[in-house]
Amino acid sequence: MKTVLVIGGGVTGLKASSELAEMGYNVTLVEKEDYLGGQVAKHKYYKLAPDLRLAGEVIDPVIKAVENNSNIKVYKHSHVAAVSGNAPEFKAKIKNSKGESEENFGAIVVATGFEHFDPTVKQEYGYGRFKDVVTNAEVEEMLNPGGPTNGELKRPSDGETPKKIAIFQCVGSRDRQVGNPYCCRVGCVVSTKQAIEIKEKYPDSEVYVYYMDMRMFGRGWEELYGKAMEEYEIIFTRGRGAEVTLKNQQLSLRAEETIMDRPIQHSVDMIILAAGMAAGEGTIEAANVLGIKQNDYGFLEPKDDFVSPNESSKPGIFIAGADKGPMDIENCIVEGAAVAAKVASSLKN
Amino acid sequence: MKTVLVIGGGVTGLKASSELAEMGYNVTLVEKEDYLGGQVAKHKYYKLAPDLRLAGEVIDPVIKAVENNSNIKVYKHSHVAAVSGNAPEFKAKIKNSKGESEENFGAIVVATGFEHFDPTVKQEYGYGRFKDVVTNAEVEEMLNPGGPTNGELKRPSDGETPKKIAIFQCVGSRDRQVGNPYCCRVGCVVSTKQAIEIKEKYPDSEVYVYYMDMRMFGRGWEELYGKAMEEYEIIFTRGRGAEVTLKNQQLSLRAEETIMDRPIQHSVDMIILAAGMAAGEGTIEAANVLGIKQNDYGFLEPKDDFVSPNESSKPGIFIAGADKGPMDIENCIVEGAAVAAKVASSLKN
Repeated sequence: MKTVLVIGGGVTGLKASSELAEMGYNVTLVEKEDYLGGQVAKHKYYKLAPDLRLAGEVIDPVIKAVENNSNIKVYKHSHVAAVSGNAPEFKAKIKNSKGESEENFGAIVVATGFEHFDPTVKQEYGYGRFKDVVTNAEVEEMLNPGGPTNGELKRPSDGETPKKIAIFQCVGSRDRQVGNPYCCRVGCVVSTKQAIEIKEKYPDSEVYVYYMDMRMFGRGWEELYGKAMEEYEIIFTRGRGAEVTLKNQQLSLRAEETIMDRPIQHSVDMIILAAGMAAGEGTIEAANVLGIKQNDYGFLEPKDDFVSPNESSKPGIFIAGADKGPMDIENCIVEGAAVAAKVASSLKN
Repeated sequence: MKTVLVIGGGVTGLKASSELAEMGYNVTLVEKEDYLGGQVAKHKYYKLAPDLRLAGEVIDPVIKAVENNSNIKVYKHSHVAAVSGNAPEFKAKIKNSKGESEENFGAIVVATGFEHFDPTVKQEYGYGRFKDVVTNAEVEEMLNPGGPTNGELKRPSDGETPKKIAIFQCVGSRDRQVGNPYCCRVGCVVSTKQAIEIKEKYPDSEVYVYYMDMRMFGRGWEELYGKAMEEYEIIFTRGRGAEVTLKNQQLSLRAEETIMDRPIQHSVDMIILAAGMAAGEGTIEAANVLGIKQNDYGFLEPKDDFVSPNESSKPGIFIAGADKGPMDIENCIVEGAAVAAKVASSLKN
């Protein structure tokens, strides 16, 4: 029985590993961080849209399915430094603080995920310059009772609870200037979810969402959007965030209302940026080590987008999840199972 | 080795069948129509977004992978009339014009897909009353050189090529009045693709898209949207289609511009309705026969939306694709592979 190398211990890689192990394959899972769970764990995601159920209810069983399966060997804080050979006889060098080992594999799954777009690139939004301009991911950590503010939304500048909060959608998404014309897929729903969480916890707060299009396309997302407007009185305004300034210690935003080309000026206490998804370092590293194709944005390119969505440009090397482009957690879990099927059939033939 | 029953010969069911067969399982595929390929085949889809590649390039290999695999037995024009037993010992009665047979299965995959929303329900749009109000699916057939108009866009009323064409998005989607609050996911991109195809073929035509939000979230969709506006000069107007009337033999539409609440009046030669996705009869029938859970809209409900997306409410019965809710072809193919993995691991344990 051949062993499968899975690179990346986020949701997709975890699911791929446990599915393969359940089908009887041996798996070696290599994760660069010293924890499993990818971005969900990194940013202490608290609740998930659209049901506002605890992220732990989803990620914990996915992690446990890996940890409790004796067919899976997990290397944390490790890298795949080099790969040689061809399908189905690969040799990979795995490096970590304890040293270097070389192992043989029948197939390789790349599930290196994404990284959040770095909003300092959009200088006009003031992230990094103004303390109270934060990201969705940072709010996620704040809202988590196990996070740095014990579950409270606090202004980083003075520790106060903000009263007027604006959310800017599409930060580093749908933006040709920064080279990311694509949609991040999850910004609209995550922002809507956070707006609801904020209004639930702080009913006196005012939450304003500035958006280009509300892309509430997923299961239950549209219903969540309706609830946000009707039950929580969150104000959605169509307009792209243009600039953030600080006037007499007060954050002020300018947005471009896109229908009438009317500028909007708005003073608020906190601005949350819905930072998009970008190809992560781990993905770029894996593409280089393995010699597989990337698209214009650095994401991994399937052999055929429709017919072979989980095969890379090289036989025996498979790809899945958000290293192929923006993807939500539900889809990543499906991709993890799908790539396991492809690996299984390739090793059978 | 246990045999797997797959219900539905659309993209998802085909992919699930071929993946299972490649992993070494025997599959019986039951399809209610006398052809394979589901909605793609039914409406003679011509080109697929975002690459405008021929649909045949995608669907043909998926069908061939089933037809050329001797582990798969295909029953066309057939129904699963009854199922008894429990996992992993099911007994299913399969009915067709030749009679009835009873077979044993280890697991069941439901991949019964969707049906297009019937736009006659939205009486105010005039579908069924005005001949030149057509659907995306009908335009797909027209644009196909193998279709009823040999690839030409023609007004059904007089066979003329329409010069001014309006497209209404969200017909039977995001619409609580008809009981479908959810987004159909593909209306925006299919309409944009068809608008481009029309402008390419008839550069003198004018194409207007009335939309609520442009949900171009998929791979390459946003780029297609940019191209539609910049290279093809398609006019996108934010407003929901409200009413269609016929004045002196001329179609006239009213739309509600949603920002200024300003009514739009517009005379055109043809109106294309982006009819949404609804749970099909096949899905409702399968849910009844198998006794598995449906959601409020008739779609099949997974055991757990995140953790077990391809398991139904009953052990040994799996679900995949657009019978769970609106889904595009790329995602259906991934779902087909994912459900195959789940079946394989369930039969292993």
